[in-house]
Amino acid sequence: MRATIITIGDELLIGQVVDTNSCFIGRKFGDCGIRIIERCSIGDDAETIIATLDRVLPTTDIVVITGGLGPTKDDLTKHTLARYFGCELVRDQATYQFVEQMLARRGIEFNELNKAQALVPDGCTVLPNRNGTAPGMWFDTTDGKVVVSLPGVPFEMEELITDKVIPRLIERFELRTNVHKTIITFGMAESVMAATIADWEDALPKQLHLAYLPNAKGIRLRLSCYDVEREEGLLMINKAFSELERIIPDYIMGYEDASVAEEVAKMLCERGATLAVAESCTGGRIASTFTSMAGASEYFLCGVVSYANSAKQNLLGVRSETLEQHGAVSRQVAEQMAEGVRQTAGSDYAIATTGIAGPSGGSDAKPVGTVWIAIASPKGTVSRKMTYGRIRTQNIERASTTAINLLRLVLLDKLDTVMSDAIL
Amino acid sequence: MRATIITIGDELLIGQVVDTNSCFIGRKFGDCGIRIIERCSIGDDAETIIATLDRVLPTTDIVVITGGLGPTKDDLTKHTLARYFGCELVRDQATYQFVEQMLARRGIEFNELNKAQALVPDGCTVLPNRNGTAPGMWFDTTDGKVVVSLPGVPFEMEELITDKVIPRLIERFELRTNVHKTIITFGMAESVMAATIADWEDALPKQLHLAYLPNAKGIRLRLSCYDVEREEGLLMINKAFSELERIIPDYIMGYEDASVAEEVAKMLCERGATLAVAESCTGGRIASTFTSMAGASEYFLCGVVSYANSAKQNLLGVRSETLEQHGAVSRQVAEQMAEGVRQTAGSDYAIATTGIAGPSGGSDAKPVGTVWIAIASPKGTVSRKMTYGRIRTQNIERASTTAINLLRLVLLDKLDTVMSDAIL
Repeated sequence: MRATIITIGDELLIGQVVDTNSCFIGRKFGDCGIRIIERCSIGDDAETIIATLDRVLPTTDIVVITGGLGPTKDDLTKHTLARYFGCELVRDQATYQFVEQMLARRGIEFNELNKAQALVPDGCTVLPNRNGTAPGMWFDTTDGKVVVSLPGVPFEMEELITDKVIPRLIERFELRTNVHKTIITFGMAESVMAATIADWEDALPKQLHLAYLPNAKGIRLRLSCYDVEREEGLLMINKAFSELERIIPDYIMGYEDASVAEEVAKMLCERGATLAVAESCTGGRIASTFTSMAGASEYFLCGVVSYANSAKQNLLGVRSETLEQHGAVSRQVAEQMAEGVRQTAGSDYAIATTGIAGPSGGSDAKPVGTVWIAIASPKGTVSRKMTYGRIRTQNIERASTTAINLLRLVLLDKLDTVMSDAIL
Repeated sequence: MRATIITIGDELLIGQVVDTNSCFIGRKFGDCGIRIIERCSIGDDAETIIATLDRVLPTTDIVVITGGLGPTKDDLTKHTLARYFGCELVRDQATYQFVEQMLARRGIEFNELNKAQALVPDGCTVLPNRNGTAPGMWFDTTDGKVVVSLPGVPFEMEELITDKVIPRLIERFELRTNVHKTIITFGMAESVMAATIADWEDALPKQLHLAYLPNAKGIRLRLSCYDVEREEGLLMINKAFSELERIIPDYIMGYEDASVAEEVAKMLCERGATLAVAESCTGGRIASTFTSMAGASEYFLCGVVSYANSAKQNLLGVRSETLEQHGAVSRQVAEQMAEGVRQTAGSDYAIATTGIAGPSGGSDAKPVGTVWIAIASPKGTVSRKMTYGRIRTQNIERASTTAINLLRLVLLDKLDTVMSDAIL
């Protein structure tokens, strides 16, 4: 089963909005064996929308369109689809009442623009949207294909895909689910990993396809299995990954959406242990990473973002002599920050970071990108110096992930593991 | 001048990587008058890459390809382009030496996979990449078009686009820069805004095109001007936006990449004032938002992420009776947190948040999504209660932006402005 995603909006072409919708749809469709053969973004222009539908429909079974359904004048998708499928726009009574009530609850006026949201092409099946004013629309073409139009607002689109579109597609095309699995690694450079696992990769069964997916959070390795029954495919993938776990055991964080932070959170919960963090250069990013995961209050006690030196002294007990003698970016200050927040919070473990995120503030001895990381634990305090590049947001992200990984190695008692900060 | 972006990688189709590259390129190209007519993502497959080039080249002047240049076996772009343009792969000596030195500095082995990164098609111009091992490649077609292939790693691609590709394109096609401008609003629902500014919109000159770009950070309004000289276009846009500023003055944050946080940072710097934050439900997100912007150390003193009640008491001086009597999610606790961190840090202003981010932890009286926000300032303390939805990450983001906006209104002495939390 082949699908094509078309995202509509001038804002996608001129780069004011990142297209996360295609990503979500790709993942959900992949899970039920629908292969995305292309995703494309085009402008809010009726002729281009029609030309693109004409181009993609011959080679695909399903087309998902997102965007261009808002109440404002630049939104053309609904009118264009009505024209493409030769339909009239008619009021959908359920949508009309739903929008009226939704706006009343939020104290927003039910004006003409909002009323027009309840108009739909008479040939489509309406997919009710309980998170917004624009419903989804499902069209069956005369040659047995499906065209679905959804709002572009991510959380509205996501619920419609999950609750309405996928179940209808499974029924309509009698789909069987396909097999992908992804293993998450951190701390080994890509070229080193490719060399380390080359023999394993060469010995993979021919039905398995390996992909490397590097980003600042590590390297993900995905195995996909095609043309094999689901059960058998899963067995092949699991066997391959358990061999891989024996080859690079200390670099594996887990599977699928696992991250270093999730792995650490799980370990802390299992041990009933607690965490506090003291951040200078990472500026709250580590605290935010943990607290954005549900259940953080089980182990996360507190964080201190000690940007000013006075905050390092008052809130964390860093000694002024240490700041004077070694500077704020030093092993000594990182260790005192970790020990200080551990004591203040009364936590079992503590993470601290201090560094020069950039773009300015560097010196010859401590260039932009220099970061000291420390972990305080019941067994004592350890620290590491990392040297990153020139880009502030990158440095913050890398330092955060590496600091969380150092805590993971402390929890595993594996401090001799080489940590690479490179993704190369 | 028309351009098409092709991003290559199975990971884009199955949704494991969000395509942020197209967005960056779209923005940069827009600035120099190059119109993106389509962006499409396809898999790591030589035949599809060739078919897509054949399809798009007749209607476009420039093709930018990103991705598929890594050292591993699933990366096919370079070999496919060599085949497409009838080239041999030859070693680029400058790239070879650069990669060798780069890896040596980071202590990574210079293995065969890395050496292969220095092979390039002999018909292309090499665009040196000082952030990674894969250089960019520039091809001139026989009919005067340009095809550029760049690595998919965002910060490598970004520097190549800015420093190498754009200057060469400006020279090659004698480009003149085009005119877009975006105004950033926050706090007014989309349908209310559409009705409020309808007369203004109807009276816009016909060369100006308006687009609404809503997201969780507010609604951005973009005016584009086509077919007019740059100077004249800018005048038309500026005139239109200054009229708009008179219609909705309290909802405008600034222009282009401006955000509520940037606006607040600017106001604090101008006044020489300092900031501290105390976060419970937003968990470090507000601190991280400010500290991810360069120059934060000028005004940002410290943040406390007081997840545990004990941290609220010890680090912020919240009274235990208040916690017992009103609960952690209450006006009283939010205000004590703001006042506490302001005093501890010795800052002029302080932001505090306390709420139930979800998915669990709600009650009938305080459902998931309930958030109290407080601002402490030299003039006293103010607070607001917001009620968001069911989605944790959404709640954290909305509460963070709304809290920063409340500080903005305090700084402007405009506390009577209605704040909407809806984007509808």
